[in-house]
Amino acid sequence: MTIVPPTTSASTIPRAAQALARCQELARFSEDPDSLRRTFLSPPIRDCHKAISAWLKPLNVTTTIDPAGNLRALYPAATSGAPRLLIGSHLDTVPNAGTYDGPLGVVLAVALLEELRAQNLYLSFAVELVAFSEEEGVRFGAPFLGSRALIGALDDNLLDRRDADGISVREAIQNFGLDPAQLPAAQLDPESVLGYVEFHIEQGPILDHLGLPLAAVEAIVGQSRLSITFTGVANHAGTTPMDARRDPLAAAAAWMVAVENEAAGTPGLVATVGVISVQPGAANVIPREARLTLDIRHQSDAVRSDSLQALTTRAQEIAARRNLSLNIATLLDQPSVAMDPFLTTQIESAMRSAGCSPHRMASGAGHDAMVLAQRVPSAMIFLRTPGGISHDPAESVLPEDVARAIDCGVHLLKQLAASPEFLQSAVARSLSQRKNSPRA
Amino acid sequence: MTIVPPTTSASTIPRAAQALARCQELARFSEDPDSLRRTFLSPPIRDCHKAISAWLKPLNVTTTIDPAGNLRALYPAATSGAPRLLIGSHLDTVPNAGTYDGPLGVVLAVALLEELRAQNLYLSFAVELVAFSEEEGVRFGAPFLGSRALIGALDDNLLDRRDADGISVREAIQNFGLDPAQLPAAQLDPESVLGYVEFHIEQGPILDHLGLPLAAVEAIVGQSRLSITFTGVANHAGTTPMDARRDPLAAAAAWMVAVENEAAGTPGLVATVGVISVQPGAANVIPREARLTLDIRHQSDAVRSDSLQALTTRAQEIAARRNLSLNIATLLDQPSVAMDPFLTTQIESAMRSAGCSPHRMASGAGHDAMVLAQRVPSAMIFLRTPGGISHDPAESVLPEDVARAIDCGVHLLKQLAASPEFLQSAVARSLSQRKNSPRA
Repeated sequence: MTIVPPTTSASTIPRAAQALARCQELARFSEDPDSLRRTFLSPPIRDCHKAISAWLKPLNVTTTIDPAGNLRALYPAATSGAPRLLIGSHLDTVPNAGTYDGPLGVVLAVALLEELRAQNLYLSFAVELVAFSEEEGVRFGAPFLGSRALIGALDDNLLDRRDADGISVREAIQNFGLDPAQLPAAQLDPESVLGYVEFHIEQGPILDHLGLPLAAVEAIVGQSRLSITFTGVANHAGTTPMDARRDPLAAAAAWMVAVENEAAGTPGLVATVGVISVQPGAANVIPREARLTLDIRHQSDAVRSDSLQALTTRAQEIAARRNLSLNIATLLDQPSVAMDPFLTTQIESAMRSAGCSPHRMASGAGHDAMVLAQRVPSAMIFLRTPGGISHDPAESVLPEDVARAIDCGVHLLKQLAASPEFLQSAVARSLSQRKNSPRA
Repeated sequence: MTIVPPTTSASTIPRAAQALARCQELARFSEDPDSLRRTFLSPPIRDCHKAISAWLKPLNVTTTIDPAGNLRALYPAATSGAPRLLIGSHLDTVPNAGTYDGPLGVVLAVALLEELRAQNLYLSFAVELVAFSEEEGVRFGAPFLGSRALIGALDDNLLDRRDADGISVREAIQNFGLDPAQLPAAQLDPESVLGYVEFHIEQGPILDHLGLPLAAVEAIVGQSRLSITFTGVANHAGTTPMDARRDPLAAAAAWMVAVENEAAGTPGLVATVGVISVQPGAANVIPREARLTLDIRHQSDAVRSDSLQALTTRAQEIAARRNLSLNIATLLDQPSVAMDPFLTTQIESAMRSAGCSPHRMASGAGHDAMVLAQRVPSAMIFLRTPGGISHDPAESVLPEDVARAIDCGVHLLKQLAASPEFLQSAVARSLSQRKNSPRA
């Protein structure tokens, strides 16, 4: 598992070591004294901006902070007026976070710009590094604040959301020294943007199990989140015979078994009950109510929808047989988002050139690429996550996988720069959008 | 269901109506303004004492409050120095209580003394009414404080327990104007006590389903209470494939299904999961820990023990197959308590004399009779509980069932008074105890 691939360029091994050291440097910038927590425009986000700016300074690349707090830096093309390719990830974290979820994608973008500069390479497109200010949704309970600004979707509803201290997104932006009125300036011009590429840790065990360092992400799974409530009749645990009960927790148990069976029997489906609570919740009282959540995800919206329908029918059958009432509320119904097929194929070629077996997979988690895909061709490269452990201080990556990722990235940039099809794509998309959108 | 039995004595119908009115009168004495809650030696307990004393005054029966706060009143025997039979129930309630759980047994005891007086009957034994100060365990989290005092089991451990305001049982007794140092005076003298009889609502649906007004309780079920914890690994609900999970809630669900099946397949067994909680408890995180309670009861300790062993083995199998750790803690292991066979047979005869089909059943709930049975022959008579609803303001009893209970009680007293075997029992038991106990 730790064999350094023979095709890794000589320069990428120290560059990978530097990237890991930089992740660790960024991990010191935290809101919490003994663990990593870095939420939207908190003070340690500014420390990250300073560090990244310092790393980019030798490249003669100027960094700016856009009105949504995203750090953006443009490595120029060979010719002026050329379109740009975005590469990046996010700087914010969950509480008690690991070191690599988000920041690794940012430092890999820095490493790629450094590699281009070291090879004195200026491509047929500019490369814009983007370090998003918010992806996890921790501070305001709504994710992707940074990437939403790039597609013009950081709307008034989101700007008015408030954190636990009553501070709105708008105020947080102002408190950071930025001007929410300037947010439209953060938006991408689709005519000048060729696409978005994001490196990110997998956050799951699949590549680790397969013994593969990298994967091309072909889709980000669609996701439904539901709240399910079975309601019966509370009663005495000692005096109520089994056949006289209307026990909603027994119903929930039967349904949870069905949920697990449905997912185990449907390739690619994941289904999770992460929350359950009962009322009144006393050891000697049959519950009156059992309330639970279902999180269900699949790359295919049709598969997800079919499984959801099967589980809904099952819940209705269980409730009817036990004379319970049932309420199912849909909290989230987010379609699957396909990554750009051209970019994904190019990533596979680049992986081959970097000595890796190409592998495609779906992302079970949401990412900024899912948001940007609404406006520009987007793609992702996953790095193996040892043990599948993330959102935890034990989160890790293997140095040789990081070296492979840098190699893959350099190959990808060179391939894309040599592709007339790719260079035409932004203009073609822009023309197509003008034709299709009555508002354009 | 509401046919007044033809053998009901003319006097018992108004007496039953009066008993119900008295329950409703006692229900007005509450700690809470809009619902009934009356805990150990709270001010409304004193209001109950005053009301009961006033009802007993015309009978020339003097009431006293013993040092545990139990109201006790002795209706004399035909001859002085005769032994006594105790009849009673408890005055305390759960929060948001119904009207009849406890107080009905007290007002029925009053009604029986009134009926004896009305018939100018003085028996071969005295009848002592006992209105226990505490049975539910609400204020101090420990039940049966009143009846434990009668068997000398209100020990220092219990006296030192504190309520939510930091007041100890001992202080609560003092604050009520009683002297904890006098508690030994509350104890029964087994030589002079023939037994204890308690009327109580069933608190379950069995008699209602059978269409029977009364039952003789042959045993109070044994009960185990356990805390079961499955521990696995928290992980991302989107990125962790089903076969890579170590999900403790899925294990708990499978086990809860096994619990229900075990109880449904074992006649007389009831098993309840009343509490469940998961950590960390987020919709998009596979839980790390699922903790639940099991309450399991059966009249036969062997049956309960066998089922508990089967469910423990099942939990171990589930945990092993899913690579989880399992912790099972026993919080309570209380054996079944048999009611006195002679008294129970006498109750069946009395039920027949009152025009009721005799029926025997186990009590799924604990009662003061379970405590007193440790020292004196004890027995219980259940009244049908419409819909099995108790511990709720909707708790009810049928007036004709109350009339039957009064009739049954009068017949029982007359039968017992005519039984030389019964009259000898206290002395015989006392002699047997002296022989068997090295401390006596």
